[in-house]
This record gives sequence, C-alpha cells and structure tokens, in this order.
Amino acid sequence: MHRSIKGGKVAQKVKLSTIAESLGLSTATISLALRDSPLVAADTREKIKEQARTLGYIYNRRAASLRTSRSGIIGVVVHDIMNPFYGEILKAIESELDRSRHTFILSNHYDSVDKQRNFIETLLQLGGDGVIMSPAIGTPVEDIRLAEDNGMPAILIARQMEGLDVPTYRGDDSYGISLATNHLIGLGHRTIAMIGGTDQTSTGRDRYQGYVNALRKAGIEVDPELRIPGPRTKQGGFEAAVHFLSLPQKPTAAVCWNDLVAIGLMNGIARAGLVPGRDISVTGYDDLEEASIATPSLTTVWNGQAEVGRLAARALLDKLAGSHEPDGIHLIKPEMRIRQSTGPIHIR
Amino acid sequence: MHRSIKGGKVAQKVKLSTIAESLGLSTATISLALRDSPLVAADTREKIKEQARTLGYIYNRRAASLRTSRSGIIGVVVHDIMNPFYGEILKAIESELDRSRHTFILSNHYDSVDKQRNFIETLLQLGGDGVIMSPAIGTPVEDIRLAEDNGMPAILIARQMEGLDVPTYRGDDSYGISLATNHLIGLGHRTIAMIGGTDQTSTGRDRYQGYVNALRKAGIEVDPELRIPGPRTKQGGFEAAVHFLSLPQKPTAAVCWNDLVAIGLMNGIARAGLVPGRDISVTGYDDLEEASIATPSLTTVWNGQAEVGRLAARALLDKLAGSHEPDGIHLIKPEMRIRQSTGPIHIR
Repeated sequence: MHRSIKGGKVAQKVKLSTIAESLGLSTATISLALRDSPLVAADTREKIKEQARTLGYIYNRRAASLRTSRSGIIGVVVHDIMNPFYGEILKAIESELDRSRHTFILSNHYDSVDKQRNFIETLLQLGGDGVIMSPAIGTPVEDIRLAEDNGMPAILIARQMEGLDVPTYRGDDSYGISLATNHLIGLGHRTIAMIGGTDQTSTGRDRYQGYVNALRKAGIEVDPELRIPGPRTKQGGFEAAVHFLSLPQKPTAAVCWNDLVAIGLMNGIARAGLVPGRDISVTGYDDLEEASIATPSLTTVWNGQAEVGRLAARALLDKLAGSHEPDGIHLIKPEMRIRQSTGPIHIR
Repeated sequence: MHRSIKGGKVAQKVKLSTIAESLGLSTATISLALRDSPLVAADTREKIKEQARTLGYIYNRRAASLRTSRSGIIGVVVHDIMNPFYGEILKAIESELDRSRHTFILSNHYDSVDKQRNFIETLLQLGGDGVIMSPAIGTPVEDIRLAEDNGMPAILIARQMEGLDVPTYRGDDSYGISLATNHLIGLGHRTIAMIGGTDQTSTGRDRYQGYVNALRKAGIEVDPELRIPGPRTKQGGFEAAVHFLSLPQKPTAAVCWNDLVAIGLMNGIARAGLVPGRDISVTGYDDLEEASIATPSLTTVWNGQAEVGRLAARALLDKLAGSHEPDGIHLIKPEMRIRQSTGPIHIR
C-alpha cells in the first residue's frame, strides 16, 4: 500500500489485516468501511477510519499496476482561494504546473484541520504526486507526515510549521512590516495602530513582532491597546474603522495586516468623513493588483506572492524529478511600495 | 469502459481495439499512449489521444471492480475562481457538497476550451461523479456530451449553451440589467454608457440586450458609441474610466457589466477629480459583499449567485440520487439594491 520515499526512508507497511486485528473485525468489513460502503454501520465506519488514520493506512483507489507511475495530479490547499493573496500565489503555481502538464486540484480548508486532512486523504487515494499547502491553524505535524510517509511530498507556502523539515516558501513578514512601520515613523507618526491578523499563525506573530521591533528601535513605547487583532478581510477592516477611530490615543496612522484590511479600513474612514492618506495614513501588506487602483492608491509592502507560488511549484517539480531542493524555510525579501494612502502626520 | 446513463441512453462502447484499428496501430501502443508513456513518440501520442477523443473513449484509471461505486468526487470548473462572483457561487456549492460528504475539486479554464476539456478528462479518469461548470467561451456541445455519455452528469451555471439539454442555473441577465438601466432613467439620466462584458457569452449578449430594451422602452435612442465592451475586472473598469470620461456625448451615468468593473470605474472617476455618485452615477451587477462597503457604496443588482450555487449543487446531488431535476434553464430573478453611487442627473 505504501511507496518508498526518496532519501532512503521507507514508510511502515500497514495492511488491512493490521487494522482488522487491532479492532477485532474482519478484513472484509475494514475494506468495505474504507470504501464508505453503507453495508457497514456509520459509527463502525468512523471508528475504522479513525484507526486507519492512526495507523497511517492509506487506501489507494488506483489499480496496483498503476502505482509506480505518476498520476500527474498535484493538490493545492489554502485557507481561502477567494483571498486574492492566495489567488496570486495560485496563478503562479498554476502557470508553472501547466507548463509541465500537471493537473492542479484545489481546495479551501478555511483553517479547519479536518477539512485539510480530508483533502490530503482524497489526494492520496487519487494517487496525487504532491501537495502544496498553506497549513491550517493547528495542523498537527502528523498530518503532513501522512502525506510524506505515503510518498506524496509536501511543500508549505505562506505559513511555516515547527518541527517539520519540508521546503517552506514565504515572505519575510517581520522585516516587511518593519518597512511599513518605519515609513510611517519617517513621516512623523508616533501613535500608530496595528490592525488585523492573529497570533495563531506564524505570519501573524511575525508581523506583530516586526511592528513592535520597529517602534522600539525608534524609541516609541509600545501600547498594546493600539493593536486591533482579528480582521483579515475588507469587511473586517471596514468594521474595525469604528474601533480604530474611537481609540482614546487618537492614532494618526494604521499599519494593516494586509491590503484587504487596509482598503476596508480606508472605506470605513471615508464613511466617517475623514480622508485616508491625509487625515489618517494607512499601509497595506501584499501589494495586490488592487492596491494601485484603490482610492487613495495604497502604500503597501510587496510580499512576493507570485515568487512564492513559482518557487513552491518549482521545488515540488524538482523533488518529483528526483533533484532535491534544500528543505527548510526560504524567505522572500519584501519591498516597500509608496503611494497616496500615507503622508506626513496630520493632527485631528 | 462506459457506464450507462440514467434515462435509458447507453453510451457507445469504444474499445482500445477500435482506436487501434482506426489508426493501424497495436492496442499496446494505444494503451501506452493513453497512459502518457514516453515509450510512444510525443506526436503519435497526441494523434492517438485526438482519435480517442473523437471516438469518445475514456481511459478509466480506477480498477474495474470499483467502477460501480461512486468516487464521491465532484468537479467544478469556471472561468476564474478568483473572481468573487464565482467565489460566492463556489462557497454555496462547497457548503452544499460538504454536507453530503463529497469531495469538491476545482479548476479555472480562463475561457480556454482545451484547459476545460483537460479537466473533464481528468475528472473522468478519476471516476468523478459529476461536474458543475460555467462553460468556456466556444465550448463545443461534444465536450459536455463527453462527460454525460460517460455517466458523469454536468450542470451548467452562469452561462447557458445552445443545443444542450442539461440543467442550467443562472440569473435573468436581461431583466436584471433593465432594472439598473430603469433606475438611472428614473433619476433623469438620458446619456447612459454601458461598460464591460462581451458578446461572446450568453450573459454578455443578454445584458447588452436588457440595456438596449430599457432605453428603447423609455424612448431613448441607442447610441452604439456609448458601449465600451471588454472590461470584466476592477483593473479593466479603472482603465475604461479614461475612455468613458472622454466620450464626446458626455454620459452622466454608466451601467457596468459587474461590481468589479463598477468599483474600478469609480476609482478611475475619482482619480480624475470627479465624485462618483454625484458627478457620475454608476451601477454594478452581482451585489458582491464588497459592493456595500465601497466608497461610495455601490448601487447594484443582486444576481443570486449563492442561490445559483446552492441550486446547481442540489440538482447534481438529486441527479446522483436518481431523482431527476428537470433539465433546461432555471432563471434566478435579480433584485435592485439602491445605494450611494447613483443620484439625480448632474450636468458636468
């Protein structure tokens, strides 16, 4: 049932009978349950699947005779493909994989570990060649190993995971956000809020840390009340405007988690009768296509998402071709894009 | 190789040997070529695949013993999943399919018939249960029949196709755009441009016709120079602003192809120093989440995309369960959403 992996490791061979014995059931029952047959009661099926997962068994639907050949299928799973940040990564992956005539199948996990695991399992059942993923919050290391140990290499994008040695491509978030914060400090801003993101992802922790470091370096005291965590979308940024504008410290600028939050916040600020870029300076993060056509055009940090996608796809293709890209974290260096949403401090 | 289809039709059985005889090659060569083996020269492989496609042969990678069971895989292919219009449809499909524990795999065709066919073929090879698609511009009827004749029912969304009798779910575009046009006429506008869309899709033709009909009904002469076809994105709408603002007829309002074009156009109008919603009235189409938080908030037409997704997924699941949803076109009735981007005529 298992394929050996490059690098000499061979996955432990788990047979149907191993699962059957461990549960005191027949191999026929196990086999039916793993095919989701209604002949096995629903809760027994669940128990069997749970046990199969624990033991690391993967039921491969493809005929045994085909198992040595590649299916040409590569899976990609991210938080939400509707987020243009991932969209721009996906376009780059797609164009790289198209060229090598791979089929590219996509899924959202919406930060549900279960949905993500379900996708990995489906991909293994389809005989997927590899998976590129931005891991869901709380992903256990075992879920990535499940793929790797079954001969399906994983490449991580955007978010990294501790205790794993797979190639990971992401922007240097701490450095990138310090560029935005320093830009605002250079314009005379001292009371700078940070809006959006969460400590539950490496990206969220790194960006907050980059903001904190930049303030400290400039001798500005860090006020935790100036952080409004949570928003990651335009709607979220729009709603945060009320909270932001009512802060007693009266911040003159906002470093936003991403361009979506920044554009939403600017819309919220405008709705309140203030002029973003003049009354309040706002920075985004990612430099989405939309950033340059927003009103005002958005000062932001280019985050290299097309590079992340291209390099991740290349790394996977190289791995499948037998030449190993070094494991570990590959950081893309962000760059500042200065536009009209930031300006010299303007006291309200 | 083929499964029979509900409704009594049975697909013609095409064997490897049929292809082999028709090309004067051995069945072994055909078999290798269809598995993409490098043992067969690239151009021979292409010729064989072309012939297999013409004859309607599908190579099913799943073992024969599994062919009677369902794979649980449903494919969805649209122009561009990054377009939030499709995104909102996809979310509704996903939530419907999740409930029935189907795996949902996605692809973009970017209006490439080849990319779309490739996806349908992959899906057939994986034993997909069904496909939901917004057909690429120029899709031949045979490509949908390829799916149907191999026991994989297709449901169309957003765009319809002539000469096909598969269930199709879309908004009533002609009616919807007439709502927007009538709203502007009611505000006193007489010189109304239409921006975006293409005559190559049913949606594009229907929306233009709805605009023309509304003008005629109000006794306003239709000026073809007031149509700026093409844009479908924010960037497109933004760039069209220059053309729009330089029209000698000096339109006071614009009916846009969709919300993205409208938001882009409003940004372009603002960049030129005019105030959208006051100097120029702008309507969108779709009522994306973003429409209500745009500056100014966007007057638009709710297009029922979540309904389209939900109904299409339900129709497919019902079909797979054996109960037939009537074929043919199911129209969702659009509704007007009046916000701040439109106002009484304002002569520049």
